[in-house]
Amino acid sequence: MIGVDWGTSSQRAFRLGADGAVLERREAGRGILHVEGGHFAEALRSIAGDWMDGGERHVLLSGMIGSRQGWVEAPYLACPAGPDDLAAALVRVPFEGADVLLVPGLTDADDADTPEVMRGEETQLAGLPSLLEEDALACLPGSHSKWARLADGRITAFRTYLSGEMFAALRSGTILGRMMTEGPMAEDAFDRGVARSGEPGHLLHHVFGVRTLGLMHRLEDADSAAYLSGLLIGHEVRAALPTGRLVHLVGAASLCGLYARVIEACGGSAVVEDSEAASRGLARIGRAAKWD
Amino acid sequence: MIGVDWGTSSQRAFRLGADGAVLERREAGRGILHVEGGHFAEALRSIAGDWMDGGERHVLLSGMIGSRQGWVEAPYLACPAGPDDLAAALVRVPFEGADVLLVPGLTDADDADTPEVMRGEETQLAGLPSLLEEDALACLPGSHSKWARLADGRITAFRTYLSGEMFAALRSGTILGRMMTEGPMAEDAFDRGVARSGEPGHLLHHVFGVRTLGLMHRLEDADSAAYLSGLLIGHEVRAALPTGRLVHLVGAASLCGLYARVIEACGGSAVVEDSEAASRGLARIGRAAKWD
Repeated sequence: MIGVDWGTSSQRAFRLGADGAVLERREAGRGILHVEGGHFAEALRSIAGDWMDGGERHVLLSGMIGSRQGWVEAPYLACPAGPDDLAAALVRVPFEGADVLLVPGLTDADDADTPEVMRGEETQLAGLPSLLEEDALACLPGSHSKWARLADGRITAFRTYLSGEMFAALRSGTILGRMMTEGPMAEDAFDRGVARSGEPGHLLHHVFGVRTLGLMHRLEDADSAAYLSGLLIGHEVRAALPTGRLVHLVGAASLCGLYARVIEACGGSAVVEDSEAASRGLARIGRAAKWD
Repeated sequence: MIGVDWGTSSQRAFRLGADGAVLERREAGRGILHVEGGHFAEALRSIAGDWMDGGERHVLLSGMIGSRQGWVEAPYLACPAGPDDLAAALVRVPFEGADVLLVPGLTDADDADTPEVMRGEETQLAGLPSLLEEDALACLPGSHSKWARLADGRITAFRTYLSGEMFAALRSGTILGRMMTEGPMAEDAFDRGVARSGEPGHLLHHVFGVRTLGLMHRLEDADSAAYLSGLLIGHEVRAALPTGRLVHLVGAASLCGLYARVIEACGGSAVVEDSEAASRGLARIGRAAKWD
């Protein structure tokens, strides 16, 4: 089977054995925003055409490729849902020479009935061993961080925090970014931001401190990006983390490392999962799929 | 006397009578960001040179013109401070043909000793009749909203909220802005955002709802900017407003109208002050100044 985790900015393709093992892997920059004129079939052939020519006829796609801006829109499935529910709701994509199926995203509603959506993360969660626990908590940090509750093989609920995208927007679009210089992540400044997130005051007030601490020479220009990052992740973790919980972190190693640091500073504990969640999730859903 | 409220993006000049009445007023776009090569003297002559030629020798400047990026840096004065304290700390600017003084900004520290700064707002507050009350609360909405406590003629404390600049950054730099269309402010959508700000969940979670409500066709593209504005101002007011307080609003009429709406929705009450606070503040400080 072929699995493709196909997001907004990149494509990760896996040739998977019958047991789910990754036999080959490839990565390309042709995320859906970089595929012009709707030429998704060509983009798929470009990354996995030789595998299909070699006999792989089952192709499973997950991520933003199933969104309104993607190849074919796969309607969201409501929580709770697990790999078997996702497999039963796959959407077929017209394609010559292989059977191509799309994993739907998931939807949920928060306490006030405001909708939640994810696309791609459900497949990573489907590949997480702790999905089978009685009650587990997972976090997938990123532009739109997802915090998901897992129980008995299903994703039961999730919440999104815009921390990553807000960091980028504040850095590039406000006075806070004017002082920021590029450089290695300053851990001390990051920790100061995390500590600040636990002090009295709203985030809208706390972010102004990035400016004033700089003005008063109490925060170096080279440290202010790390401080702002710690402040935002600190606010997110304090809002999302139930007291003392264990969090399974899924995502880029460096970002997971920062989240683990904040979770521990806030009284929780964290396990950084290996980076194979997406391929394992694709394999798990693919095994339950009805192929042509 | 001549008073100039000289900010980042614009200049407002007043010719003031001995009683503080505005005899003439002018406005120009030559804020400090638009004055190249440090030619502030020319910019001052350009807006008020004929008044000086006509005999006005006393010129008082307030706002970002006294910042590090301005003409001469006027060190911040610590709270509590009132018009007489400001007048005693004016900074003289070398200038041919008139006596030019700069009003310093104010500084304060929040509960966790993070610094606060304002420049220009202290002069508006100095012109507010409620400065003389025993205990008054004023709000100056804007890119960096200021909430100030006033008592017996002095500004005793203040806090800044980055709501205005965050709105602009989220709109121009995130996925939330991609759906937003220009148009008249939709009051219903603004009120929905204000109501949302009072529901459980952190701002970093609430902002993602702008995206999901749009995706699920529960918020029109034409309404999403107003919703986000209500959400941010709602968060600011809920954080800054002590229960049931009266707030004196100083600033642009349309923005003050929105803040008044939110303050009332949150159980407070609001008075929108007239737009003469800056000229009255310049006149008040100028009367106490030591001119050459």
